[in-house]
Amino acid sequence: MINYPNGKAPLSIKTKKATALKGGLANRGMNFEAAINRANAYYVAENRAIITKRPTPIRIVKVDYSHGAHITDAYFEKQSTADYNGVYRGKYLDFETKSTQAKTSFPLANITAHQIAHLSGVIEHGGIAFFLIDFAVRQEIFLLDASFVIECYRFSNRRSITYQTIKEKGFLVPEKINPAIDYLAIVDQVYF
Amino acid sequence: MINYPNGKAPLSIKTKKATALKGGLANRGMNFEAAINRANAYYVAENRAIITKRPTPIRIVKVDYSHGAHITDAYFEKQSTADYNGVYRGKYLDFETKSTQAKTSFPLANITAHQIAHLSGVIEHGGIAFFLIDFAVRQEIFLLDASFVIECYRFSNRRSITYQTIKEKGFLVPEKINPAIDYLAIVDQVYF
Repeated sequence: MINYPNGKAPLSIKTKKATALKGGLANRGMNFEAAINRANAYYVAENRAIITKRPTPIRIVKVDYSHGAHITDAYFEKQSTADYNGVYRGKYLDFETKSTQAKTSFPLANITAHQIAHLSGVIEHGGIAFFLIDFAVRQEIFLLDASFVIECYRFSNRRSITYQTIKEKGFLVPEKINPAIDYLAIVDQVYF
Repeated sequence: MINYPNGKAPLSIKTKKATALKGGLANRGMNFEAAINRANAYYVAENRAIITKRPTPIRIVKVDYSHGAHITDAYFEKQSTADYNGVYRGKYLDFETKSTQAKTSFPLANITAHQIAHLSGVIEHGGIAFFLIDFAVRQEIFLLDASFVIECYRFSNRRSITYQTIKEKGFLVPEKINPAIDYLAIVDQVYF
């Protein structure tokens, strides 16, 4: 391979494609959440849905009030609910987003028992609950109904769900220009 | 008045009643939010609804990673949505809680244009949106539909809504032992 002026190899076609998807999907793992936030901003602007990210809960230890309220000591806390919730076509939506570098399976380790209980309650009360799972290396995002994840979490000994199973039970979210991740198009198909 | 051993006068009957409402309603302004949180915990425990508080958004400036993730510099940000949302009887709920020390009116100054736009969107997409307004001095809590507050905010020059108007347009939330503020009983009446 020849050397390029900046010492780096040119972007592969696949990376180029991802870069073109102006959603920061190039650096997927890190930007998956940002792309979801952009989709939500798009939905609000288009008057399609009101879906917001729950801020990461923070335990505040010390606040300095000498010049306004300045937090000087605090820690991140674990989210006991899911990342996003909101209202769409009269229905309550609640979902968790996860990006994985793994190719063949989605690990359940990052999902807490609190989150499972939360999503299970959402379904019981008539809400729509799902996971958006980003297989970063494959550049594929799936919507997977939470009831299936809950079942796997509670009643199986598996510590992960295989890519193959997600492909069968889930729904591929096609990537577009704007919004890059139009997950409500899939919500329409699956839940309405 | 005689002196009591601890140097303090006895609690008035009104304060005693409030203290008995084991919801911290004694120190109302400060504890109104805590009482709503307890009601929500009660609703989850009783499998009645899933309603959660949105954490206050915090802008993080500096994180020290030398011993885990320790936030050393951060600021509170204004909530651009409402305090609480969730699912109840298949419907999306979104509401803001406000406690006021005023006796004759509820000031609109603490409500932002973002919050009004948010709640307006919620209604448009089929959700239920309201305010829970605590008149701390009167020891009275009212549920007021957001559409009325939005109307006042947008189309009138008033910078507050009178107590009398809230009493007419809103619904008194009776205080109980557990939960102290059973606002879903009023939601049942008003929206179902």
